[in-house]
Amino acid sequence: MIAVLAGGVGGARFVDGVAQVAGAESVSAIVNTADDFDHYGLRICPDIDTVLYTLAGIADPVNGWGIAGDTRATLDGIAAYGEEPWFLLGDRDFSTHILRTAWLGNGIPLTSVIYFLRSRLGVGSQILPMSDESVATRILTTDGELAFQDYFVRRRQTDEVHGVRFAGIDSAQPTEAALTALSDAELILLAPSNPIVSIGPILAIPAYRRALQHRHRPVVAISPIIGGKALKGPADRMLASLGHESTALGVARVYAGLVDGFVIDAVDTDLAPDIEALGMDVLVTDAIMHDQADRGRFAREVLKFAQTIAVRTAV
Amino acid sequence: MIAVLAGGVGGARFVDGVAQVAGAESVSAIVNTADDFDHYGLRICPDIDTVLYTLAGIADPVNGWGIAGDTRATLDGIAAYGEEPWFLLGDRDFSTHILRTAWLGNGIPLTSVIYFLRSRLGVGSQILPMSDESVATRILTTDGELAFQDYFVRRRQTDEVHGVRFAGIDSAQPTEAALTALSDAELILLAPSNPIVSIGPILAIPAYRRALQHRHRPVVAISPIIGGKALKGPADRMLASLGHESTALGVARVYAGLVDGFVIDAVDTDLAPDIEALGMDVLVTDAIMHDQADRGRFAREVLKFAQTIAVRTAV
Repeated sequence: MIAVLAGGVGGARFVDGVAQVAGAESVSAIVNTADDFDHYGLRICPDIDTVLYTLAGIADPVNGWGIAGDTRATLDGIAAYGEEPWFLLGDRDFSTHILRTAWLGNGIPLTSVIYFLRSRLGVGSQILPMSDESVATRILTTDGELAFQDYFVRRRQTDEVHGVRFAGIDSAQPTEAALTALSDAELILLAPSNPIVSIGPILAIPAYRRALQHRHRPVVAISPIIGGKALKGPADRMLASLGHESTALGVARVYAGLVDGFVIDAVDTDLAPDIEALGMDVLVTDAIMHDQADRGRFAREVLKFAQTIAVRTAV
Repeated sequence: MIAVLAGGVGGARFVDGVAQVAGAESVSAIVNTADDFDHYGLRICPDIDTVLYTLAGIADPVNGWGIAGDTRATLDGIAAYGEEPWFLLGDRDFSTHILRTAWLGNGIPLTSVIYFLRSRLGVGSQILPMSDESVATRILTTDGELAFQDYFVRRRQTDEVHGVRFAGIDSAQPTEAALTALSDAELILLAPSNPIVSIGPILAIPAYRRALQHRHRPVVAISPIIGGKALKGPADRMLASLGHESTALGVARVYAGLVDGFVIDAVDTDLAPDIEALGMDVLVTDAIMHDQADRGRFAREVLKFAQTIAVRTAV
């Protein structure tokens, strides 16, 4: 069994690669929910849905989020009623949000809702929300505090990020399903996701952080920063403005003490000694997933690397 | 000012005809809400939406309900998740239900929600829910009591109706807007809608019934039964199984004491004396609205007829 902490498009694609190689039923994705929000009265879970659609093989191949070939008649109707359609939602995509909202409204926990949705889409891997309670990432900027999707989508990540907080994190409980997935895992992977706003909220729940700190099995993280840049999203700028180094080394420092192995791209080879000095084995490889088949190639290399490393931290 | 009590496709088309002739701003439709229901967590108001889409000129011309040319990707997605798509909802149509549900959830009364929606669609006539409180028509059959849309759509009106009740009617308040529309009206019309389940719920709210009983201005009803048959829907069978005569005369008897004028089709000419004996003036005409332009022709005849009749009941 393999547990993958993930969020965002890169995270979803990496989970897909691991599922291709290890077998879908062997993989549990523990997914960030701190960018979930309510929109038009519907509960939207962008990171979970990106994993869901990616593993179901229906994700839009260009954007990475949303459903391939989806239409926009519902959103056009909403716009015709005068509501600004700043968050793009396709017609088929709406069915996910509508049913999820209805079921949550009936008191069904998010974990069970997602179990049902992924089962219906034929997804064999577990997709586990990090919590059934609501957590909301808030982005501190010079214009004040913004809701995450306001910063991320509406304002297109143009604000300099001076701080990040996760509203509700103190009362958010880990789920039994995610704790079980972590304790059953022979390997725990941190996907190439934004360390601050995708992996960060998961590790801000004490039980998950403790599970990594007191690990029995190796933990391997993949750098989302390659050559100082994020392939997608604002992770590079966010690391820099928050006082981190905007490099794979900067990401490794964020994860220090939690991981035994770290995967970087060949362009970052010169960072390997400093990462090793943090107490991590390093895999240097082509860390870009060039297409869907290439996700398997990359995951295979990561899993092979994981077999070579030992847990660095005593339980 | 003209107030029209309405529900269903025939009612919506009649309101459209009256608005064509009298001018949109002169017309207030007071619309049945007792077939409203919650579906996939969304609040659906079939009668109101049929009036809304018809007056906005976007109603599906064949069905009468829904939006012309609408697609079904959202419902297909819902079906892909295993939910039976028995109530047909188009993608653009979903935008109405999504926004309405969101606004109702924010505590905005239905009357205000519909005011906003119809204004955004450029509808000049008032579309007034009969109540901002929830009322639910329940259909008594040999299989037990059914929710209205279960009887009407899911089971395609195949059950014999042994009784009808309006759950919640005792606590449903009339709205200020509808009471004002009735008191300001120089003419009140009962559209050719089902007298039991479309007009019936409106008249089951005591303030509206009293407004008709103690009227200052004439009330004119249009028979939805022509030659013993309903043009659309189960009104004929419902009248019969509930012990009424399934004719224009049967409808007139339901409205006895509430209306001064009654409009029937030429095929029902022989019923005129018995209807007149109920204390109503009778207009015999072509009572079928053959197409959109013909709605104006019919409304013009009804309005002309209304000018010739006097209020029969002392205030």
